[in-house]
Amino acid sequence: MSDTAATQRLSKWLAEFGKALERKNIKTAAAMFAKECYWRDLLAFTWNITTSEGPDAISAMLEATLDEVKPSHWQLAGEATEANGVTEGWLTFETKMARCEGQIRLQGDKCWTLLTAMVELKGHEEKRGSTRDKGVAHGAHKNRRTWLERKTQNEKELGHTRQPYCLVVGGGQGGIGLGARLKRLGVPTLIIDKHERPGDQWRKRYKSLCLHDPVWYDHLPYLPFPDHWPVFSPKDKIGDWLESYTKVMELNYWPSTECKSATYDEKRKEWTVKVKRNGKTITLKPKQLILATGMSGIPNLPKYKGMSKFKGKQHHSSRHPGGEAFKGKTCVVIGSNNSAHDICADLWENGARSVTMVQRSSTHVARSETLMELGLGALYSEEAVKSGISTEKADMIFASIPYAILHGFQIPVYKQIAERDAEFYDKLEKAGFMHDWGDDESGLFMKYLRRGSGYYIDVGASELVADGKVKLKSGVEVAEITPKGVKLSDGSELPADLIVYATGYGSMNGWAARLISQEVADKVGKCWGLGSSTKKDPGPWEGELRNMWKPTRQEGLWFHGGNLHQSRHYSKYLALQMKARLEGLPTPVYGLPQVHHVS
Amino acid sequence: MSDTAATQRLSKWLAEFGKALERKNIKTAAAMFAKECYWRDLLAFTWNITTSEGPDAISAMLEATLDEVKPSHWQLAGEATEANGVTEGWLTFETKMARCEGQIRLQGDKCWTLLTAMVELKGHEEKRGSTRDKGVAHGAHKNRRTWLERKTQNEKELGHTRQPYCLVVGGGQGGIGLGARLKRLGVPTLIIDKHERPGDQWRKRYKSLCLHDPVWYDHLPYLPFPDHWPVFSPKDKIGDWLESYTKVMELNYWPSTECKSATYDEKRKEWTVKVKRNGKTITLKPKQLILATGMSGIPNLPKYKGMSKFKGKQHHSSRHPGGEAFKGKTCVVIGSNNSAHDICADLWENGARSVTMVQRSSTHVARSETLMELGLGALYSEEAVKSGISTEKADMIFASIPYAILHGFQIPVYKQIAERDAEFYDKLEKAGFMHDWGDDESGLFMKYLRRGSGYYIDVGASELVADGKVKLKSGVEVAEITPKGVKLSDGSELPADLIVYATGYGSMNGWAARLISQEVADKVGKCWGLGSSTKKDPGPWEGELRNMWKPTRQEGLWFHGGNLHQSRHYSKYLALQMKARLEGLPTPVYGLPQVHHVS
Repeated sequence: MSDTAATQRLSKWLAEFGKALERKNIKTAAAMFAKECYWRDLLAFTWNITTSEGPDAISAMLEATLDEVKPSHWQLAGEATEANGVTEGWLTFETKMARCEGQIRLQGDKCWTLLTAMVELKGHEEKRGSTRDKGVAHGAHKNRRTWLERKTQNEKELGHTRQPYCLVVGGGQGGIGLGARLKRLGVPTLIIDKHERPGDQWRKRYKSLCLHDPVWYDHLPYLPFPDHWPVFSPKDKIGDWLESYTKVMELNYWPSTECKSATYDEKRKEWTVKVKRNGKTITLKPKQLILATGMSGIPNLPKYKGMSKFKGKQHHSSRHPGGEAFKGKTCVVIGSNNSAHDICADLWENGARSVTMVQRSSTHVARSETLMELGLGALYSEEAVKSGISTEKADMIFASIPYAILHGFQIPVYKQIAERDAEFYDKLEKAGFMHDWGDDESGLFMKYLRRGSGYYIDVGASELVADGKVKLKSGVEVAEITPKGVKLSDGSELPADLIVYATGYGSMNGWAARLISQEVADKVGKCWGLGSSTKKDPGPWEGELRNMWKPTRQEGLWFHGGNLHQSRHYSKYLALQMKARLEGLPTPVYGLPQVHHVS
Repeated sequence: MSDTAATQRLSKWLAEFGKALERKNIKTAAAMFAKECYWRDLLAFTWNITTSEGPDAISAMLEATLDEVKPSHWQLAGEATEANGVTEGWLTFETKMARCEGQIRLQGDKCWTLLTAMVELKGHEEKRGSTRDKGVAHGAHKNRRTWLERKTQNEKELGHTRQPYCLVVGGGQGGIGLGARLKRLGVPTLIIDKHERPGDQWRKRYKSLCLHDPVWYDHLPYLPFPDHWPVFSPKDKIGDWLESYTKVMELNYWPSTECKSATYDEKRKEWTVKVKRNGKTITLKPKQLILATGMSGIPNLPKYKGMSKFKGKQHHSSRHPGGEAFKGKTCVVIGSNNSAHDICADLWENGARSVTMVQRSSTHVARSETLMELGLGALYSEEAVKSGISTEKADMIFASIPYAILHGFQIPVYKQIAERDAEFYDKLEKAGFMHDWGDDESGLFMKYLRRGSGYYIDVGASELVADGKVKLKSGVEVAEITPKGVKLSDGSELPADLIVYATGYGSMNGWAARLISQEVADKVGKCWGLGSSTKKDPGPWEGELRNMWKPTRQEGLWFHGGNLHQSRHYSKYLALQMKARLEGLPTPVYGLPQVHHVS
């Protein structure tokens, strides 16, 4: 609830904090934080995405940045609220370079969490509303060049006689949304993608695929879905949307173009990128290279003994064409996460003779509807929209919770999910399914952030597993592949016409290894993951997702990806980093982390 | 300003009015109107678009409709305001069939103007927000049909094994926006258009063309332009938008399809429409035929003596390909309205040797910028958006002013325009340009409504005329066309390599004559125009635009068109009329006018 006392408390804190920073009194400023405290910064202070944890780290960050940043005009935006001893509110401030916003939570009179985020660079604002282009030069002009002529010429030149400043490799939702932001900021950008049309990244997947996240979570920047858009977009529909979006946002997008190699000239600060466009090799010279190939890297195709002698069909889940071709066939799916479930259901729906899921280790499952209601509903739902939480606001609320304490917000949600769906989980476990809630019971989203795997958002396959319609072999490993099937570690054998390896993906820096060099891939290190010391997310603690949307140890190399929410929100900060560099503004990066893992 | 007294006055009026209607006390209800009064109804009472003028007309309308309509729940929506003795506010109410809204203005305690408008049919509401489709059937289903499969099958069947309920002839912005509304209401609809791609209606016009209305005025239903969209859309850009819109709204749209003939079977209540699709004749059997061919009819190509012997190029403005082909040529443009000005400027910009405009009668000119600020700014501008006037609200405000008094709102605007741009008009008249402000000085928009012609929104050509860069012959008629040029009524002769006839268009019912029969065209009569007894808009007074978006004298035949604002807003009411008929709801039409003019 809104609260005058809370508003006064927060206003007073901000005024004092602003004064301390203005006077460069770092000690005073740091003393305004609680012992357990987190300052998450999205570019505003650090030209990086960092969380400083504890007063000492905050002092160190301020020592390094304050002179350059010159923050001022700290102001509460709207009313503060108070609940359970935490006072929270929104704020705006400025730096020398930028207009910024933020969110703050006090415990008592001390700051527990602070989010600071860049909104726009002064003098380089996006044109919109009253500053939008006129579209036509009124008056009469000899040899007037029309919009179409300018567009056509730009398309003809870019990548040939004129080089893009940014080259985005991968034109899925990530590359496209980022491309739109760069376009609005006037950063010359080329997006390349190997498929024939924007949206093919979705269209070409198995036919029953729908987005697992609901529409309120999925908007692209600038152009929200209309209000009748289905809750879960079918893959071809989202494909068509992406294609239309690319067109109406006037992105420079080369389909049917594959990146073959990239090398960085440290002297010229420039990439040499060889791409194959419709079979023809073209050399591009961008200053910035952005790998927007999803949050996943290269498919993990396991190397089981005997694979080469298998007489049926076998492929990684990423190459699964859909179940129609396997009607009447005996199918084995290795793996038990999202893709494995989706493909099992798809094969069953299409009349496979039998489908067996091989579960090697435990998996977390959450029912889509429950997750939508309890997990996302407060921020991304029709109710949230009605209560005034716009997509942008929801993104900022989410961003305001430091990763270090996010599990604390998640655990009670999953406790509630466990209660609500107790019967469901019971049935699943009775069928022999090995289920877990994550190392600390924090559920799906933390698994996603920590390791990008280990879960299934149930849209129907779990019932098939529970009912035995999809057979389950759990707690086993694959011993070898025989010419006729799969031999498991318990000595049993599964005959198979088809084996699908739903065995996940490597780290995104696998793309750097493939396109640039192993040396550069190792230099930037593993992407994604927080260093939580939970399964598949080895420490030390990083505080942020590794290498995502922020400077890496390789100058000019950037990683963009994540789900639709992350792509939408963090593309904003990646775009601002590009714009600042294009304009030659100083962008001293604070807190570039050490590399602890190479993949 | 909001005003408690005003709110009380209006609430009281509405309560009494509601009670009188409920008790069917028509005398009491009619007595609550001032002597000069207007009740504009958009479907709610009349299943028609009508304005009842004066207490007697209102009584007659209520006598005819009240039993069936059963209005109830009259309520003020928000606060009322008062200014200059007029109390006004928004309202909601219900009928037996529908949820409705409205606007009211009182003078003293009596009603001066009342707008009543249908919002949605009970039980047939559009799905949106929380009632949107889920998009995926969760669970596992043998032989699941995907979105793409359903879409593909629908496309394959519609027009072949399954007939559309509505056939929309013309897939420009009008047909497309209407198509989207019909789609949302679940009315099976097919849109046909002769061009190869949606948007070609714009793309194929002369290359410098931009929309003359600003972006805030131009939104299509459901999917507004993003906030960076240029103020004046270049033609190819709006073409691309329309094409994308058609796709993402999943409209059934047949490009490269021409309507050849249509006949109505009065017994079967069904049309037989022959269309040529990619050269192949297909017979369609829709129940409703909607001509969405713009507000203009068939080009008026004048029949001047000697035309057939002209040795240069000659064509109607609608066929003008753009000025590039006429570099170095001597060009004559007959006419002085929008197209004539645009084409003169285009020819001049492209280096024609000389360009002469032949002005046969006086024209009204308003500078685009001034018009945008003084004419539209209050409702359609960035400022309006900021002050909370959404596009939908602006459309309703505009609709709330009865046509009979609209000129009274317009005259002061044009007085202001005349003052602001006095120098401009001075210069123009000094150059010999015959300028007028409309019969009653009410300016451009009234001319548009009354006759759809007689004006130019200046985006630059007037300066060329004023400066003599485009030569002007005014106050003359064309006497004949000679092999080498144009002979004028003053005896002078203009040599010409090119003659463009910017001589306007006939009434939309010309399309009915061409596609159906002269008999049906005469039966429905002239489209557009108010019967204002001003130039080119002969009386008697109709109170509304003839035949637009409402029932005509030919059952099953409808006309849709107008500018982007009108197409957007009135497509809503046309779509509701279609939906009600599809569902077999009673739609007794009140006030079908007599036909006074056949073209």
